Amino acid sequence: MGQTGIGVIGAGRIGFIHCDIITNLVSNAHIVAINDVDEKHAAQALKLTGARFEADPQALIEAPDVDAVIVTSWDPTHEQYVIACIKAGKYVFCEKPLSNTSDGCRRIMEAEIAGGKRLVQVGFMRRFDEHYRALKRVIDSGQMGKVLMLHCSHRVPWPGGAKHTTDTLITRAVSHEFDINRWLLGEDYATAQVVRGRPSSYAEEGLEDPQLVILRTESGVVIDIEISMHAKYGYQVSCEAVCDEGTVRLASPAAPEIRRDLTMSQAVCPDWHERFRRAYEVELFEWVESVRNGKITGPSAWDGYQSSAVADVAVAAGEARRELEVAIGTCPEFYRES
Amino acid sequence: MGQTGIGVIGAGRIGFIHCDIITNLVSNAHIVAINDVDEKHAAQALKLTGARFEADPQALIEAPDVDAVIVTSWDPTHEQYVIACIKAGKYVFCEKPLSNTSDGCRRIMEAEIAGGKRLVQVGFMRRFDEHYRALKRVIDSGQMGKVLMLHCSHRVPWPGGAKHTTDTLITRAVSHEFDINRWLLGEDYATAQVVRGRPSSYAEEGLEDPQLVILRTESGVVIDIEISMHAKYGYQVSCEAVCDEGTVRLASPAAPEIRRDLTMSQAVCPDWHERFRRAYEVELFEWVESVRNGKITGPSAWDGYQSSAVADVAVAAGEARRELEVAIGTCPEFYRES
Amino acid sequence: MGQTGIGVIGAGRIGFIHCDIITNLVSNAHIVAINDVDEKHAAQALKLTGARFEADPQALIEAPDVDAVIVTSWDPTHEQYVIACIKAGKYVFCEKPLSNTSDGCRRIMEAEIAGGKRLVQVGFMRRFDEHYRALKRVIDSGQMGKVLMLHCSHRVPWPGGAKHTTDTLITRAVSHEFDINRWLLGEDYATAQVVRGRPSSYAEEGLEDPQLVILRTESGVVIDIEISMHAKYGYQVSCEAVCDEGTVRLASPAAPEIRRDLTMSQAVCPDWHERFRRAYEVELFEWVESVRNGKITGPSAWDGYQSSAVADVAVAAGEARRELEVAIGTCPEFYRES
Amino acid sequence: MGQTGIGVIGAGRIGFIHCDIITNLVSNAHIVAINDVDEKHAAQALKLTGARFEADPQALIEAPDVDAVIVTSWDPTHEQYVIACIKAGKYVFCEKPLSNTSDGCRRIMEAEIAGGKRLVQVGFMRRFDEHYRALKRVIDSGQMGKVLMLHCSHRVPWPGGAKHTTDTLITRAVSHEFDINRWLLGEDYATAQVVRGRPSSYAEEGLEDPQLVILRTESGVVIDIEISMHAKYGYQVSCEAVCDEGTVRLASPAAPEIRRDLTMSQAVCPDWHERFRRAYEVELFEWVESVRNGKITGPSAWDGYQSSAVADVAVAAGEARRELEVAIGTCPEFYRES
Repeated sequence: MGQTGIGVIGAGRIGFIHCDIITNLVSNAHIVAINDVDEKHAAQALKLTGARFEADPQALIEAPDVDAVIVTSWDPTHEQYVIACIKAGKYVFCEKPLSNTSDGCRRIMEAEIAGGKRLVQVGFMRRFDEHYRALKRVIDSGQMGKVLMLHCSHRVPWPGGAKHTTDTLITRAVSHEFDINRWLLGEDYATAQVVRGRPSSYAEEGLEDPQLVILRTESGVVIDIEISMHAKYGYQVSCEAVCDEGTVRLASPAAPEIRRDLTMSQAVCPDWHERFRRAYEVELFEWVESVRNGKITGPSAWDGYQSSAVADVAVAAGEARRELEVAIGTCPEFYRES
Repeated sequence: MGQTGIGVIGAGRIGFIHCDIITNLVSNAHIVAINDVDEKHAAQALKLTGARFEADPQALIEAPDVDAVIVTSWDPTHEQYVIACIKAGKYVFCEKPLSNTSDGCRRIMEAEIAGGKRLVQVGFMRRFDEHYRALKRVIDSGQMGKVLMLHCSHRVPWPGGAKHTTDTLITRAVSHEFDINRWLLGEDYATAQVVRGRPSSYAEEGLEDPQLVILRTESGVVIDIEISMHAKYGYQVSCEAVCDEGTVRLASPAAPEIRRDLTMSQAVCPDWHERFRRAYEVELFEWVESVRNGKITGPSAWDGYQSSAVADVAVAAGEARRELEVAIGTCPEFYRES
Repeated sequence: MGQTGIGVIGAGRIGFIHCDIITNLVSNAHIVAINDVDEKHAAQALKLTGARFEADPQALIEAPDVDAVIVTSWDPTHEQYVIACIKAGKYVFCEKPLSNTSDGCRRIMEAEIAGGKRLVQVGFMRRFDEHYRALKRVIDSGQMGKVLMLHCSHRVPWPGGAKHTTDTLITRAVSHEFDINRWLLGEDYATAQVVRGRPSSYAEEGLEDPQLVILRTESGVVIDIEISMHAKYGYQVSCEAVCDEGTVRLASPAAPEIRRDLTMSQAVCPDWHERFRRAYEVELFEWVESVRNGKITGPSAWDGYQSSAVADVAVAAGEARRELEVAIGTCPEFYRES
Repeated sequence: MGQTGIGVIGAGRIGFIHCDIITNLVSNAHIVAINDVDEKHAAQALKLTGARFEADPQALIEAPDVDAVIVTSWDPTHEQYVIACIKAGKYVFCEKPLSNTSDGCRRIMEAEIAGGKRLVQVGFMRRFDEHYRALKRVIDSGQMGKVLMLHCSHRVPWPGGAKHTTDTLITRAVSHEFDINRWLLGEDYATAQVVRGRPSSYAEEGLEDPQLVILRTESGVVIDIEISMHAKYGYQVSCEAVCDEGTVRLASPAAPEIRRDLTMSQAVCPDWHERFRRAYEVELFEWVESVRNGKITGPSAWDGYQSSAVADVAVAAGEARRELEVAIGTCPEFYRES
């Protein structure tokens, strides 16, 4: 079997990272075509990959040498391109969010189920991070007994620029947490609430940052998630599972231990890119392998919908200032096998 | 000035520990009289200290050679003895809880205010722990900016024996957390709620363990506290302060790092006694010094009342399954100076 | 430029690992031909890569589609194949040791210098390890001032099988340390000695394991290196640099922190493969890039010779039971630029 | 039994610390008399303790209310006062060094043996440090098998003032290491050497700092000890035992973990006083208990002699630039029981 041909829709920051990884580190695939609303914008990726520019996304999707598509365009366009891929029978890797609305995610699921074959993978890269995987192995080994609680934090040194609101902290940043904790525990959420308090001195007027999101899963596991978007002190994701037999904490990347000036210190990750660069590589490597094997095993459209729909409930719970039930339906038979 | 004479009411486990510390490690004080409902029960402490047995608590309190009293009797008797000490004008160190009811605490405050002089100290030993003090120094230094959140856990390998209920986990175990976080932050609580989920496989039928207590302070700091009473894996108290400029975590006692059997490990504390032994020593040393200086600086009756009253609100919030306001009055002028 | 064609001589354990990495993770290269003394032995690698079997190493080296060669054959054959590559004008990546004798290394250098172009890279994979690189960045940043001492250990849970002697612990295991510390410091060794003491209870009769190798560099940096070959408790490499302004320690890969059974623990690496898998990937990726750029930047034949020659001095010093001078010549002009 | 009366000869920095500890934290003892060459110099300690000034050291030693003596005078006077105590039949705690010469230590041993009763304890406070004790417990438990090597460092941010020489780094600073490692291993030294290299940029011209002292014990355990006297970055003692079954490292005091400015950091001890304050307390508490029990169990005159004599050998080995045998006699029967 020759190399798998990949088409890319959207060659911005994250799109370029994917192009770079596919081009250099995934021997079995290469980028053959790139679409962007602006060819000039795509120039750097075209140069890197040697791919051709394709002005029409639909033509890119349908091109015979495009075996699979990466959708990294503007969020509101995800739904349209993913559904086009499904209709064309092409595998599609869509950066998160799968759609900027839960309804969009639902329509993608419906299209995929109608097509009868799993074609969609959502870019929840944390599932491919070595530290999250090591944590899951410990939990799944059974040595800790049942999980009772998860304490999580997601701290981001927001560089400014694109505007965040109290709600987008939930829908965009916490969405990673919604996905990864479902994955760690292997079950869905039953209730959600949001506790808000003293905002960071660095948060813009009216922005509730940090927030504490509290979830309960169907079996009763209690999860608290701190989201801090003005964590200028360093990027950090943490997770501690409290279990019957003990506790286990997600590791962070190691760094040299320096003793100087009466302190012992280690550098921490400055941003998501350094923290998860390796996870992106593994994600794409495994995605290409699964495409070549004809069996998608990564995060599904159902996973994308869940994160999106739970986020909606959490946003509503934050406004209502109380715990709400998460009633977003059960997993369709179609998605049960993965 | 000669040694300060101490009378002890209640020579059980914690009473004996206090007797041992005063006798051996606090040069400026000695135990002169011990009361217990049963002289035989007190025998070990009498032998250790060389003190006399005093069958009548009131007589012990009033004895001329008793400069100060330690109350470590059965919880429901605390109020009566502490008030007797106040009336006799004697300094009194009362193990927590100050009283087994909030009303009892309030009556103690009233008596002390009526007496016009601070005589009461409550045994919140965590305030004397080197690690909590180091944490407070970092917070108070201002280098971290404002505190926004506290993430706390209190894990206890319950040895069985005395029966716990879902409520006593709050009123007895979390009470330490209620106190120490007020002390760390220098402010009182505005709201409380309790989130309950999947119980430990080791918890007795019907006992909600663990629980997640969520508080908000007057200024809006959000505090989440995990209480786990069946933490057979080891005793642990943890606290992470999320601040404007960064985060800071309570240290735990260090232990040798052992590499063996493909793991790197360190022993953790098996129980509260090993974790806080040194804090008890410092607590009594400083209490004796403050008695000798005529100015009590440790946790006051108001502090004892606060912990007790907030616990009551938290218990009610747990039953109501929602957030409740903590409306337990403002600090009397009398207690403001300490 | 199309994919770089790689020929592999020797398809054993490490040869197979290299084949796997090139085939799957280095997009710009592919394995085109494999030689092994036994075709059956090579079968697994042939299947993985889709390469052809080449019965004659010389023919493999000279094949037009072979742009570069990986030599992972039996140590005593390295010299012959590397020199053949040089004569054929082919780039060659040789697993360590470059030769099983210092003289062999020297002859390789002579051949390469005679050829007038750097073609040889030696497989000192630690230079590509993220943790060693992070350590070197800290040292090179100048923030720590001058390096004064290095404390190192290299602990290997020897699986048995191939027989080790007191000397091969130096020549084969410590050789990694000889290379990496020269690289960290950017200078060569002036003296070497070996201190031997109590052997491990697991060492075979007469085998001196562990040993402490002590080096001094030309500028006077003192380096102590513990080699432990019966470290059944886990694989570990450590390095602590003592500098003017402080100390800095090599990090180890992180693992989840587990609290259980009154201990806090983390898994450690069981073997070199898990510890350095990622370094092997980076090593080959960067080697292929340098081959494609026409400029080898990795460890040179001079580096290979240094490790081998210093090992010889250390073995002699161990026998002499005293410090010996390392007088193995100065770096030829030819190797200075790299 | 009433309080034990203590006389103190030498009320300088360390003498004052001992006075403070005895006065405040050791209930069973009090300071009754203080001698110093200058009464004014002693004033602070007299005020703290309420003791009387005693102008004549001999009179202090012989005073009926002095049950035991603490010698913290100028090093060269230790021998004379300790021998006077022995002759007067008084228990004596002598700060290290026991004498400023090995011969002086030997004469003290002779006097003590002649007297027929153990009266002398030397101030090797590390033996009372919780972290060293925890390390020894792990080693003594047998769980690690035999000890094969010890890697140690002793880093001191020298405040300047009193002048150090290359030799006093060994005789005064490393002497703590000579003692503690004998104690950890339960055996004496067979050989010693010193490796010197690049001096710290902060060391005065001609001062060899750091140095690496290498010892071998009678059973062959290899010990390397880094002494760094210009460790302005923070005080540190470290020790890693390499054993048959694994390795174990001395813990350091814990401090809050702070995340700020893209680093995770913890404060380290600035000096010996903060690092070992608690060990001094335990040392004196246990010494007083042993005096009251009539059986000295702490470091003996033999221990003091060993450290001093091994230091002499190490100094000679440093000058000779080679390994020397430590032939300083075997432990007299008299000291075997302790």
